[in-house]
Amino acid sequence: METSPMTKPQTLDWQQAFAGRAGNMQASEIRELLKVLAQPDIISFAGGIPDPALFPLDLMQRASADILADPASGRAALQYSVSEGYLPLREWIVGYMARRGVSCAPDNIVITAGSQQGLEFIGKLLISADDTVLVTAPTYLGALQAFDPYEPRYDSFALEADNRTPQSYRDAAAAGTGRIAFAYVVPEFANPTGLTATIEARRRLLDLAEELRIPLVEDAAYEAIRFEGDPLPSCQQLDIERCGGIDQSRVIYCGTFSKTIVPGLRIGWLCASRAFIGKIVLAKQAGDLHSPTLNQMIMHRIATKAHDAQVAAAVALYRDRRDAMLAALERYMPSCVGWTRPGGGMFIWVTLPDAIDTARLLVESLASERVAFVPGGAFFKDGAGRNCLRLNYSLPSIAEIDEGVARLGRLVAAELSRQAALPRRA
Amino acid sequence: METSPMTKPQTLDWQQAFAGRAGNMQASEIRELLKVLAQPDIISFAGGIPDPALFPLDLMQRASADILADPASGRAALQYSVSEGYLPLREWIVGYMARRGVSCAPDNIVITAGSQQGLEFIGKLLISADDTVLVTAPTYLGALQAFDPYEPRYDSFALEADNRTPQSYRDAAAAGTGRIAFAYVVPEFANPTGLTATIEARRRLLDLAEELRIPLVEDAAYEAIRFEGDPLPSCQQLDIERCGGIDQSRVIYCGTFSKTIVPGLRIGWLCASRAFIGKIVLAKQAGDLHSPTLNQMIMHRIATKAHDAQVAAAVALYRDRRDAMLAALERYMPSCVGWTRPGGGMFIWVTLPDAIDTARLLVESLASERVAFVPGGAFFKDGAGRNCLRLNYSLPSIAEIDEGVARLGRLVAAELSRQAALPRRA
Repeated sequence: METSPMTKPQTLDWQQAFAGRAGNMQASEIRELLKVLAQPDIISFAGGIPDPALFPLDLMQRASADILADPASGRAALQYSVSEGYLPLREWIVGYMARRGVSCAPDNIVITAGSQQGLEFIGKLLISADDTVLVTAPTYLGALQAFDPYEPRYDSFALEADNRTPQSYRDAAAAGTGRIAFAYVVPEFANPTGLTATIEARRRLLDLAEELRIPLVEDAAYEAIRFEGDPLPSCQQLDIERCGGIDQSRVIYCGTFSKTIVPGLRIGWLCASRAFIGKIVLAKQAGDLHSPTLNQMIMHRIATKAHDAQVAAAVALYRDRRDAMLAALERYMPSCVGWTRPGGGMFIWVTLPDAIDTARLLVESLASERVAFVPGGAFFKDGAGRNCLRLNYSLPSIAEIDEGVARLGRLVAAELSRQAALPRRA
Repeated sequence: METSPMTKPQTLDWQQAFAGRAGNMQASEIRELLKVLAQPDIISFAGGIPDPALFPLDLMQRASADILADPASGRAALQYSVSEGYLPLREWIVGYMARRGVSCAPDNIVITAGSQQGLEFIGKLLISADDTVLVTAPTYLGALQAFDPYEPRYDSFALEADNRTPQSYRDAAAAGTGRIAFAYVVPEFANPTGLTATIEARRRLLDLAEELRIPLVEDAAYEAIRFEGDPLPSCQQLDIERCGGIDQSRVIYCGTFSKTIVPGLRIGWLCASRAFIGKIVLAKQAGDLHSPTLNQMIMHRIATKAHDAQVAAAVALYRDRRDAMLAALERYMPSCVGWTRPGGGMFIWVTLPDAIDTARLLVESLASERVAFVPGGAFFKDGAGRNCLRLNYSLPSIAEIDEGVARLGRLVAAELSRQAALPRRA
C-alpha cells in the first residue's frame, strides 16, 4: 500500500457507515418504557410477558439433567446441528398443527428463535424496499419492528368491516414498487386489541390475498390462550380447505411456545409450503446456523409431557385476571371511555376521548400514579391511535389490577375535568 | 370486499413472491455435503466442528441444575430479557477483551447467537445493495452467506502482499453504489486457510480502512485455539492504540464460545463502539428479541469456572491432530501438492495442480475413497480456488487422519497419472 498512517487518525462517522435500512431501526416506546418498569413501586400493564409463576421449573430441571447426563444426548445437545431444527420437536409440532386442522410434514416446519425471528425471516425473504405490506391498524409492534428494516410501505385492512377493492390496494401500492409483499394478521386475541377475527373475516382476508396473489402471514402467538368457546379454524386450515394441501397454501403460520410454556428458551416455528420453508432454512443458516440444540430438546420433552396442562394453567390464571381488569375498568373508568372484551390472550385495548393524548398521559401516569401502559400510537404507522392505550393483564396480580385501574381511572377523570375547565378554543 | 371466492383457487407462485435478495440465498456446497457425512463409513475432513469429547458435560449439568433449582434464577432464565444480553456474561467478556488488549465496558458488548448472527447483523446494518465488501480470497463461507442477502459486491485484499491503492478500491466500487461498506478479516488461523496475519499486515489493513473511512470487521472465531507462540495484538487493540479508545475505534470484533466451550448453546458476541452497538441492539431486538437467557447464564458460569482449562484441552487435542495431518500430507501427497502450516485453529488449505478440479475430485473421493473435504471454490466469489481444498482436523481421530489423507493422496496421484496419460490438448 502506498499510504502511511496519518499522524492524526480519522475517526469513523458511524452515521455515514450505516446502510439506508438502519434509519428504519429506532428505539421503541415500549423498550424505553421497560427501563422504568424495573422500579419496584410501578404497577405495570405495559408488558406482554407471561407470569413466571407458571414456568414448569421442575420439569425443565429434569429434562435438562436427563439430556446432559447421557453422553450421547448431552453431546448432541451442545454440538452444531441442522438449520431446520430438531426433528422430534418438528414432529411434535406436526401433531399440534394437525389438532389445529393443518395436515403437514416435518419438512413444512422450521424452528425459529420465537415467532419474532419467524417474522424477521419473512420480512427478509419477502420485502423489497418500497413494497407494500398489508396490516391491521393497530397491529403488533414487534412485527413492524421485524419488517421495518426491509423498508416496506404499509397499507391497512379491516377484519370486520368492508374492505377496499383489490384494485384499490394495487393502486395504492403503485406509489412504491407496485408490489404488495404480503398481508400480516394476528387472528386470535390480537396484540394490541385482544380481538379475534370471525371465520367470515378470515375467509374475506384469504379472498383478498388470493386476488392480490400474495402470501398471508398468520401470527398465532396467542391462539392457545383461549378463555371460552371453541377454537376457530386457523387461516391456514381454511386456505388448505380451498387449495387442497399445505404445499399449495399461501398461508405462513407463525407459532411459538413463548406464551404457552416459556419465552426464555426462544423457541417458535414457521409452518408453510415446502417452497417457502426451503428458503427459510437458508435464511436460518445464514442468520444464526440453528436454534440451540439443548433448548429444542428441552422444549420437545416439556411439550410432550405437559403442553396441555401448561396451557390450562395459563388460561385459568389469565382468565381471572382478564375478568378482574374488565370489572375494574367498569368500576373506575369514566363513561366516555371504551374498551375491548378479549376472549383470550393478554391484552385489553382502551379508547379514550379524542382529546386525550396517551403518550402524554403515560408521562403523568408514571410520575403521579406509578402505573405503566403502552400508548396506542406505537401500534400504528400513521400517527393514529393517540387516544388509545394497551393494557396487559397476564403479569399483574388481581389486587394490582384493581388498584392500577383505579389509579388510571382517577387520572383519566382528572384529565377530562382539566380539559373541560379550559376555555373552548375559538 | 367486492370479489367472491373463485371456484378454482389460484395457487401462489412463491418465486414471484420472494424479494430480490432471496435470489442471493442458495444452498451451500458444505450443507449439501453434510447430508453425506451422516453415513458412518465416511472419514470427514469437511466440517468445522469441535470434538464433542471436549464438551464439559458435568459442568453444564451442574450449572443448569443450579440455575433452575433456585426459583428466582430459574424464572429469570426462562423469562423474556434484555436484547443486549445477560449483564454478568457481558462483564465476563469485558474481562476477556481486556486480556486481548481491548479496554471496554459492558455497553460495548452485545450477545449474539454465535458469531454467525453477529455477521448477519453487520450485513444488515452496513450493506446497501451494490455496496462493496472487501474480503480476502479465499474467505469464510459463512460470512459470505451472512452478507449475500444484503446484495453486496465483493472486492478482495491480500494480507501479506502489497495491496492496491485506496483509489483503486474506490474506482472499483464505482461499478456499484460507489460505497465501500466495510472490510472483513479473520486475522488468526483463518477459515479456510489456517493462516494468520502478521502485525504489519494488520496495520496495513487498518491504514486501508482509515483511508477508505470504513469499519473493519475482525472475526476472532479461532484466536484462542493457538498451538504455539504468543498471541498477536487484535486489530481492535492496534486500532485503539491509534485512535485512543473503543468508542473511537472502527473495528467491530466478533467473538464466540463455539470453538472454546460449546457451539450448541449459540452464544457469541460483538464488541465495538457504543455508536455501533446501540444499533446492533435494535437489530437484535427486531431479529429475535434476545438470546436465550438460560444459555447465557450457563455460559457465564462455565466461562467463569473453566474457560482457560477448556481452551488448553482443545489446544492440546487439536495440536496433535494438526501435527498428524501435516505428517500425513508429507507422507502421502505427491510432491506437486502444497499446503499451509497453521499455528492454530481447525483447518489446512491444500493446493493441487491447476488441472485438478476439487469439486469433481470430491464426487470421486466420496464414491471410491469415502473421504470428505470442502472444495476450494466455495470460499471464493469469483470462481477461483477450484484446484484447492479445505481439510479439517479438529474432529477426526489421528488414525482417521492418517488413513483419510493416505486415501486422498492415492486419489490425487491416480488423478494426476490419468491426466498425464491423456493426449495433450492442441
